[in-house]
Amino acid sequence: MSALPPGSTIGILGGGQLGRMLSLAAARLGLKCHVYSDVPGGAADVAAASTVAPYENTNAVRAFAGSVDVVTYEFENVPLAAAAAAGEAAPIRPGPKALAVAQDRLKEKSFVSALGIPVAPFAAVDDDASRDAALLAIGESGILKTRRFGYDGKGQVRIRNAAELAPAFETLRRAPSVLEGLVPFAYEVSVLVVRSLAGEIRTYDIPLNTHKDGILDTSTVPSPLPPAHAARASDIAGAIATALDYVGVLGVEMFYLPDAPEPLVVNEIAPRVHNSGHWTMDACLTSQFENHIRAVAGWPLGPTGRHSDVTMTNLIGHDVDHWQALAAEPDSALHLYGKPDARPGRKMGHINRLKPRT
Amino acid sequence: MSALPPGSTIGILGGGQLGRMLSLAAARLGLKCHVYSDVPGGAADVAAASTVAPYENTNAVRAFAGSVDVVTYEFENVPLAAAAAAGEAAPIRPGPKALAVAQDRLKEKSFVSALGIPVAPFAAVDDDASRDAALLAIGESGILKTRRFGYDGKGQVRIRNAAELAPAFETLRRAPSVLEGLVPFAYEVSVLVVRSLAGEIRTYDIPLNTHKDGILDTSTVPSPLPPAHAARASDIAGAIATALDYVGVLGVEMFYLPDAPEPLVVNEIAPRVHNSGHWTMDACLTSQFENHIRAVAGWPLGPTGRHSDVTMTNLIGHDVDHWQALAAEPDSALHLYGKPDARPGRKMGHINRLKPRT
Repeated sequence: MSALPPGSTIGILGGGQLGRMLSLAAARLGLKCHVYSDVPGGAADVAAASTVAPYENTNAVRAFAGSVDVVTYEFENVPLAAAAAAGEAAPIRPGPKALAVAQDRLKEKSFVSALGIPVAPFAAVDDDASRDAALLAIGESGILKTRRFGYDGKGQVRIRNAAELAPAFETLRRAPSVLEGLVPFAYEVSVLVVRSLAGEIRTYDIPLNTHKDGILDTSTVPSPLPPAHAARASDIAGAIATALDYVGVLGVEMFYLPDAPEPLVVNEIAPRVHNSGHWTMDACLTSQFENHIRAVAGWPLGPTGRHSDVTMTNLIGHDVDHWQALAAEPDSALHLYGKPDARPGRKMGHINRLKPRT
Repeated sequence: MSALPPGSTIGILGGGQLGRMLSLAAARLGLKCHVYSDVPGGAADVAAASTVAPYENTNAVRAFAGSVDVVTYEFENVPLAAAAAAGEAAPIRPGPKALAVAQDRLKEKSFVSALGIPVAPFAAVDDDASRDAALLAIGESGILKTRRFGYDGKGQVRIRNAAELAPAFETLRRAPSVLEGLVPFAYEVSVLVVRSLAGEIRTYDIPLNTHKDGILDTSTVPSPLPPAHAARASDIAGAIATALDYVGVLGVEMFYLPDAPEPLVVNEIAPRVHNSGHWTMDACLTSQFENHIRAVAGWPLGPTGRHSDVTMTNLIGHDVDHWQALAAEPDSALHLYGKPDARPGRKMGHINRLKPRT
């Protein structure tokens, strides 16, 4: 349980913007980073070392892990074989259990549900028989989602009536899927919870999230969530983190149904720093990135309090072309990820617009 | 006057903690850094590229500058020949004028004084004759300082009576020096001013600085400086920046004499980000480092307002051994520079302790 001293090296699987912001946070603490990614990316520009190799190359993963003091990751789809190979040479935090659960929607929903925490109604769709059974169990409208590799609205099809399910399953190439019932939520919130190596839990204030084209658009704190429900949401996230024996930041997306007997329904968990926590970079003394690094390095957690109100807005695709105007906005902090091509749907940066705390 | 687009590369001469924090700030904006240093250092760990070569190797400096979009520096003792070589291949900001003035205490004092801004009484000491003349001009007590390469109390000797001056000059190996008269100040403040490529000027709130063994110990905002004098201090710093046709962050140290006809006396200018501005990393939306990068990249300046009160305390030498306790402090942000050896007098990090704004 000893803390890694300054000068130690954090290995990060994944070289995108989350790995980049983790590296920047580690550097503040005098920690080095080594980024492992299957493609060159912006994280390597701010890391002391980088490896570019396939995640399937377990020898390369093992050598990488052998050169660092702890391994963490910026995305939940790290192949389990890569995580296992890394784990042979260094501690991996969060642990493989979080990965295994979060990589598979069916396992994830079953796991959360087994903790007594509400999730949307769900049923497995693996073949024609289970497809038809799911329709009976869930009803005629819902969302068919692949069990694996879905993100930002990818790998999912909306179902409006019974006749749409079969073609949707074909659209998803008959990949093992889950049919989810629709939840009549008022809005979505998310809990950023961090759990230390010693098991201490801290949560950030809870943002209200809005989406555009299936991608997170804004996260705003404070959310209108009533205090009792906010406390319940934090407890739910903490219970999931503890059940996973989790170390680091965990993002838990929830639907809010103000008048339902169970007003908070878990939508999805992300075993990593989360886009809906990017506002913590400018409205908190310790960002989600620094607290993730602190946790995986065995350090004491930093404060999760908030000194300002804030709305984080993602810059997607060509939104980033307006960088000069965005950089000139008062009371704002602009973050750009150093990606060369502003492709549609690509997260290029974000802007945090702050106001004095209400 | 066009702004460098995201993805551009900032070249930084100097690879210590200031270069490191500049690199981290540049990365937030999607800018890359290339660090040039005569010794390996912590900045290279967070930069996209690094060169280790002597500053006297003007070919290497020119090649470095040719590979970047703009050159800046983290220390005022960049050899002028290196700055000139860099300037042949890329814009250098702040410009060579600021370097030439700030590298030489005699030039610096003459320059500031010529702007009608008060400085401590001073006289050149180059040889026995000017040494004796200085004594007559300044009086029997003062500080003899080398004109060049002094920092953190190095290169200076306190004089308490006439008999001490000659041996002090020998202690400084008869290097060209300046005898400064003592200023009976109440306390020291500093102004962090940033000037954009277009000439816009913004200043941060003014910290009160304390020293220990000649090295900055703490910087606290707000200082007790009365508003009218704070405004005057900001105007002085802005006037110096404009007179130097300065681009970037300039640190101006001043003595405060509440009851004197001229209550603010300029002690020293630093043509770079400044240790007394490290509190801006956590108490402001845009740190001094980001505003320096914005200025040298031709970007609009960021806000210099402050959301919290704060005291920055330097971690010198073995102070850093207490990193675990420091990391556990509430309402604090710890910054470590990634230096391997905690030698006495070495700046190893700093901690910003925040309070709600008064």
